[in-house]
Amino acid sequence: MTTASDPYYSRTLDQWQAAKRVDPVAADAPGPLTTDEVWNYVRDGFLFAPELFSQSEVDEFLAEAESLAENWPAGQPGIIKEPDSDVVRSVFRLHKVSQLYNDRFFRDFRILDRVQQLIGTDVYIHQSRLNYKPAFDGKEFFWHSDFETWHVEDGMPRMRALSVSLFLTESHEFNGPLMLIPGSHETYIRCTGGTPDKHFERSLRRQDYGVPSRQALEFLLEGSSIVAPKGAAGSVVFFDCNTMHGSSGNLGPTPRINLFSVYNSLENAVTQPFCNRPPRPEYLAERAIVPLSDKKQK
Amino acid sequence: MTTASDPYYSRTLDQWQAAKRVDPVAADAPGPLTTDEVWNYVRDGFLFAPELFSQSEVDEFLAEAESLAENWPAGQPGIIKEPDSDVVRSVFRLHKVSQLYNDRFFRDFRILDRVQQLIGTDVYIHQSRLNYKPAFDGKEFFWHSDFETWHVEDGMPRMRALSVSLFLTESHEFNGPLMLIPGSHETYIRCTGGTPDKHFERSLRRQDYGVPSRQALEFLLEGSSIVAPKGAAGSVVFFDCNTMHGSSGNLGPTPRINLFSVYNSLENAVTQPFCNRPPRPEYLAERAIVPLSDKKQK
Repeated sequence: MTTASDPYYSRTLDQWQAAKRVDPVAADAPGPLTTDEVWNYVRDGFLFAPELFSQSEVDEFLAEAESLAENWPAGQPGIIKEPDSDVVRSVFRLHKVSQLYNDRFFRDFRILDRVQQLIGTDVYIHQSRLNYKPAFDGKEFFWHSDFETWHVEDGMPRMRALSVSLFLTESHEFNGPLMLIPGSHETYIRCTGGTPDKHFERSLRRQDYGVPSRQALEFLLEGSSIVAPKGAAGSVVFFDCNTMHGSSGNLGPTPRINLFSVYNSLENAVTQPFCNRPPRPEYLAERAIVPLSDKKQK
Repeated sequence: MTTASDPYYSRTLDQWQAAKRVDPVAADAPGPLTTDEVWNYVRDGFLFAPELFSQSEVDEFLAEAESLAENWPAGQPGIIKEPDSDVVRSVFRLHKVSQLYNDRFFRDFRILDRVQQLIGTDVYIHQSRLNYKPAFDGKEFFWHSDFETWHVEDGMPRMRALSVSLFLTESHEFNGPLMLIPGSHETYIRCTGGTPDKHFERSLRRQDYGVPSRQALEFLLEGSSIVAPKGAAGSVVFFDCNTMHGSSGNLGPTPRINLFSVYNSLENAVTQPFCNRPPRPEYLAERAIVPLSDKKQK
């Protein structure tokens, strides 16, 4: 696809650019979210649902998270360490690994009903992961739009995807909570530079390409301000694929563990990457397109 | 001095150790602080004084801070860059450089009266600096007790010093505010490892020695919790030399600039370092002992 026909081209210019989003933020499908909630999502690019899951559910999910980090099979891809240590930062493609997460979270009706209401079609899982943000050692995630990377490196054509982040531990000001820039999802930031070969091997620990410039971030923050939803374990943040987000390091004495799943419209399945590189591995960008609606768990 | 006669030996053992502080936290000298304020300082190891300086004073201090970072003479020691970039992280020994800071902050009666009330004797400046914590690029300062380094690397004999941090910008949850562990000043953490030659050349960007272990931090946080005083520019934090503190990175769009001065009792002037290394340079540990009481600015 050429730059001219791709509204979301990036990493081709010497200067960053702000482009208008060309896709709707949310559909008008029926579902459990109120009109106000959908409107807030459309305006802010995210929605916070405090304590959508119970503590007993969280306890089971946490035990699974600890087991996955400890028992990840040697040689199985999808495990990432912290940039300065050997502590586990993330594990990926959990929808192929964890029956518990599949049955009780990824396909749970509390998640899927909301996701399908916002996306408006049946969906599949583009990516799933745990971010452990370990106590004291968990380093920051710099500001980024997921969509920029998913588009350029994975070949996701349009903005018809969203992320769901479930707090498996309380999120508070000292453990590096998810931070978002409300309204940033309406603007697509074209980043500078190219895409090095096998960029993902480094970018998951510390990202150098597909990073918005300081000026781009200042532009997005004009008239807006940073928001960090905080709350008990079991709370959920739904956020648009293009919402600018990041998080500080964790200098607190307990980990900040979040379980993520990314849902993409079946009508928006990944194609060839929008850069001259092979696609990233499937643990980062699923290419087995499995519709979820008939597998919903009530 | 041998380990046996030095209550604060450190970096000589294979395992961290918690030792009881042997020095009083505060004197009982007259001064502007109320009895409650002194008691809180003794209990917590710090005291927060919101908006002790006016915005117009801060404006002048900020202009000086920007000028110092921009015009630091090539070859003059005491300027430190961020670990991953060329942005200025800190400048040091400002009591030898800035008449404005000397007259209007370091020796200002609002500072000196409180410092002398807490320390109980005349004092001199052991160190002074600006931490810029630049927008987006300002990286974390990991947890540390200043005294551990000042003792081992600078030869400060006892805990009779304190730091004063003036906010030159608002401190808020998103720009990496100073975080402290209340009560931690009562415990001296002996760190593991040694002290490499010219350790300071690296430690000011990212510290590897004299760092408390994760277990030591958990120990200090038992029954306590992290506190981050937040407030307008012009606010001041007074904190004991042994209070465990640190700060997260700054992912916000504006810098977080703090002006620090460290006051040490005249009766506690630095001697030879408590490690087998030459003392650190004077921009980090002043060896020209100049009493301040007769130079107080009203």
